[in-house]
Amino acid sequence: MIPDTGNATNLPNPGRSTSESRSYVAVDWGTSSFRLWRLAAGGEVLDRAAGPFGMAGLPKDGFGRVLEEQLARLSVSKNVPVIICGMAGAAQGWCEAPYIQAPTELSQLGSGAVRVPGHEREVHILPGVMQAKPCNVMRGEETQILGLVDVRPDYNGIVCLPGTHTKWVQVRDGRIEHFTTCMTGEIFSLLCNHSVLKHSTVGGGWDSCAFLEAVAQVASAPASLADSLFKLRAEMLLEHLSSSTARARLSGMLVGIELAATRSYWAEGAVALIGESSLCHNYEVALASNSVAVELLDSEAMTLGGLASAFRQLEGPHE
Amino acid sequence: MIPDTGNATNLPNPGRSTSESRSYVAVDWGTSSFRLWRLAAGGEVLDRAAGPFGMAGLPKDGFGRVLEEQLARLSVSKNVPVIICGMAGAAQGWCEAPYIQAPTELSQLGSGAVRVPGHEREVHILPGVMQAKPCNVMRGEETQILGLVDVRPDYNGIVCLPGTHTKWVQVRDGRIEHFTTCMTGEIFSLLCNHSVLKHSTVGGGWDSCAFLEAVAQVASAPASLADSLFKLRAEMLLEHLSSSTARARLSGMLVGIELAATRSYWAEGAVALIGESSLCHNYEVALASNSVAVELLDSEAMTLGGLASAFRQLEGPHE
Repeated sequence: MIPDTGNATNLPNPGRSTSESRSYVAVDWGTSSFRLWRLAAGGEVLDRAAGPFGMAGLPKDGFGRVLEEQLARLSVSKNVPVIICGMAGAAQGWCEAPYIQAPTELSQLGSGAVRVPGHEREVHILPGVMQAKPCNVMRGEETQILGLVDVRPDYNGIVCLPGTHTKWVQVRDGRIEHFTTCMTGEIFSLLCNHSVLKHSTVGGGWDSCAFLEAVAQVASAPASLADSLFKLRAEMLLEHLSSSTARARLSGMLVGIELAATRSYWAEGAVALIGESSLCHNYEVALASNSVAVELLDSEAMTLGGLASAFRQLEGPHE
Repeated sequence: MIPDTGNATNLPNPGRSTSESRSYVAVDWGTSSFRLWRLAAGGEVLDRAAGPFGMAGLPKDGFGRVLEEQLARLSVSKNVPVIICGMAGAAQGWCEAPYIQAPTELSQLGSGAVRVPGHEREVHILPGVMQAKPCNVMRGEETQILGLVDVRPDYNGIVCLPGTHTKWVQVRDGRIEHFTTCMTGEIFSLLCNHSVLKHSTVGGGWDSCAFLEAVAQVASAPASLADSLFKLRAEMLLEHLSSSTARARLSGMLVGIELAATRSYWAEGAVALIGESSLCHNYEVALASNSVAVELLDSEAMTLGGLASAFRQLEGPHE
């Protein structure tokens, strides 16, 4: 078991004497969101900020302004350093932090950080991780996995990070060995909001049985996804299918084909889940129905733990 | 072989003496488009109109106005009747024409037509076809299939109608026996225009080899669709994948899982294709690579032939 991470305001295992360290600011800067924590040297969260200031809505010269505005609101002085993970380091982000290549030691993440040039404050952006074959990339998830191995250095197994682009990652001896990506969250959102199925799902709700039935059907017969989607629309027209059944069955179909595609990851029978809690709950029941033991990890604690660990890597040994 | 349908201005086989018939107007009224033909009693196309006046953009009381505006432009007098197929007959269309249930004789289509009440001109809307189990619906494709059996009364086999919602239909002895629907076209469009893959596909183009390779890969391993989609984005980032390869591979993956889902339809080894010509060409090469004999039928000729046949059903015997 990993330590209780329910209280995300305390970083797990800062791992060093606080008197030697500086206080700093940690930022998770994604495609659509921005989350900031002001941290004491020991890892205690002193303050936080968040907003919809994601990469997708920012020009290249907008990142520095947004960051300083948020820091000014919290009265953070100019000599406090900042460490950032996520899409801010993409080519189309603030300042590109080139990918490091899997298989890779997670302890190398800090040394791959890029200091933002021309910005008065000390700002470091962590790299993402790439994989040459099969071709794949991640930005942000690697930091959460670093958070996991920071509290569990002996973690050997699979980490699944459900989300817009769900990642399945093999972790061994503090390394990311290999990983794959399924666009399950993005496709669910597109079909619910922009396809003919929006008429069937617009009422919201969730039918747990319909979810699990659809997972089982498509996981065992993945091709059936192709000619089962439109049945949701037909059943709504002819049989007044409820939106709670339609939404859950749609999600179950997409999770079902994801499980079929990632069988080699979860076939060993144990998976750690990091992500938004209701989404992780869906993956938990889907995996449990396939006799997979699941461990739920707090997403914010993993992000903060990873950023703290990477910051310590940057600061170097103080012995 | 069916007669040459390359010249869509001549309806195939009007099937009766023209002197007894009235001239009329045929309309294919879909979700996003409106196509109108003014026909001589013998089937000759005298005039045509088209526009983006689809059901999706019209209030319930807008259909009659749009139709009369188009007819006024062509100086069609008030005593000329109109026959319509497609979404204008849906519950959210102009005037609901309830589905007839498969298995169904295509010769029953005309008798399922609904005359639009309260409209001065004689306007008939053809029904769609439903299937109770597995639940499914079509509106418009049944008219094209009627067009096929009008010129080929002995057609027994599979008809595939590629499009936004591709239909696979078993036709036997002038009947629609059963059918299924794949949302391949809509999903391709959503992923190309609204997902993270838009960055990879925005340049257009078409790599035929990439299309066929992806069809083969996903048709033989349907689950691989789930973790192959994001590779397009990763390969664009890391290996500068061209948009012509990305678009064709994306389409190939979606057609591949469609072929896996509809194997029972094409496994007999012959399919007639009705639809937009470049799209049908893609299905043709995908099916040919699975040793399926393909026949391409002119979409407009099938629509006009079906509307003409249904109009004759409405008019009744003149003997």
